[in-house]
Amino acid sequence: MKAAGFDPGCISEAERKDIAAFIELHIEQGPILEDAELPIAVVSGITHIRQTKVTLTGDSNHAGAFPMDIRRDPMAGFAEVVTTVINHAQKLGRPAVTTVGKCISDPNGAAIIPRSVTFTIDARHPDPASATLLYKTHEKMLVEIAARRNLILETQVQIDLPACLSDPSLVDAIDLSARAAGVKTMKMASGAGHDAQQMATICPIAMIFVRSEGGRSHTPEEFSAIEDIVAGVTVLAGTLYNLAY
Amino acid sequence: MKAAGFDPGCISEAERKDIAAFIELHIEQGPILEDAELPIAVVSGITHIRQTKVTLTGDSNHAGAFPMDIRRDPMAGFAEVVTTVINHAQKLGRPAVTTVGKCISDPNGAAIIPRSVTFTIDARHPDPASATLLYKTHEKMLVEIAARRNLILETQVQIDLPACLSDPSLVDAIDLSARAAGVKTMKMASGAGHDAQQMATICPIAMIFVRSEGGRSHTPEEFSAIEDIVAGVTVLAGTLYNLAY
Repeated sequence: MKAAGFDPGCISEAERKDIAAFIELHIEQGPILEDAELPIAVVSGITHIRQTKVTLTGDSNHAGAFPMDIRRDPMAGFAEVVTTVINHAQKLGRPAVTTVGKCISDPNGAAIIPRSVTFTIDARHPDPASATLLYKTHEKMLVEIAARRNLILETQVQIDLPACLSDPSLVDAIDLSARAAGVKTMKMASGAGHDAQQMATICPIAMIFVRSEGGRSHTPEEFSAIEDIVAGVTVLAGTLYNLAY
Repeated sequence: MKAAGFDPGCISEAERKDIAAFIELHIEQGPILEDAELPIAVVSGITHIRQTKVTLTGDSNHAGAFPMDIRRDPMAGFAEVVTTVINHAQKLGRPAVTTVGKCISDPNGAAIIPRSVTFTIDARHPDPASATLLYKTHEKMLVEIAARRNLILETQVQIDLPACLSDPSLVDAIDLSARAAGVKTMKMASGAGHDAQQMATICPIAMIFVRSEGGRSHTPEEFSAIEDIVAGVTVLAGTLYNLAY
């Protein structure tokens, strides 16, 4: 920044104070609109997102020569954690979700009981009280499983974005624009994080979702039909026009 | 080989026909001698070793936007497999062992339900009938879990070394040598694979194990005391002398 003639010390002065509202148009990234046979949704709020990095450490030993009954096997503990957190989210039902997407075994050898397994737990709930309870339940589960299996537990919260509600008057403005354009909509919470969460620190926000084919996202199969995209753009344009004039 | 003046086509002619016996001295790589407070063991045979590479494939989707109840999550299936095979070996008790040492999540992102998880199952039993039953049980478990969770199952046996028994007359010769040297021993099966398995295709084999501190192996902590190593070398030398003269 300095090389380009800017002063990094002045970053906070660059904050915009002149933004009345931020409305984000985004694909749904899930299958709910497709199930409901609707092209777009008005987002009621963005879910609480917490990503925790977890490492379970035991003793690395020989897969053949070391008996089962005296192992401290972090892979066994990891598997129990995965099953427990996923089953818990399934029992809670929609909109709770919990995902273990990342795992690293160390040293990752077929004939070696791992020394450690490091993995992520991504857990989300749009209701603040339910989210708090979900994270407390996970913490208790982790401590209990690690202690019972004599494994060392390390946890590190890497992302923690509290739920972010859409502004009610912006939601009404989007609804009005959709009705005027003859586009049917529904209300839904966003299970994904969005730029609007950052903008919410300086202005009211709301979002419009566009139907995702097969609910696919974060994969090359991600797709939205041009008709649905046009519906989203039309409702966004109408909303902005009504807010501006 | 050709550059050095050798003919690779003649490899089979290089097979030695003049070897009367192969006796291998090795560290135990497990904690059984330490528990028994003995310096060395005479190996009754080498366990059956089967390493299977398994891939479970589902649908990669967004960790926030895709509801739990319609996921095809290979991480959940993987966790159930790990728990099932490890619990099964624990229930069977010694000398059965099963290890999942290696796992790779694809694409291995914290906010992405994995497309697939690839992992290894290393399962061992020195008794041929018990080994066969163990592997059949694993195959059934894998098929059942993958089908119930709507995951694609691929398996590939990467190592399959049947149990290799020590030659009874060589075992007697080692026993005799140990008694003559005043070294106390015990009999045990090897849970690890060894060079002797390869030599067994051309001559009778047996093995001597030396106590491993803490049973540690396949880790930098691997250690055997010099007194125990001397005991092993003494018994080996006496055995070879008696066999030769």
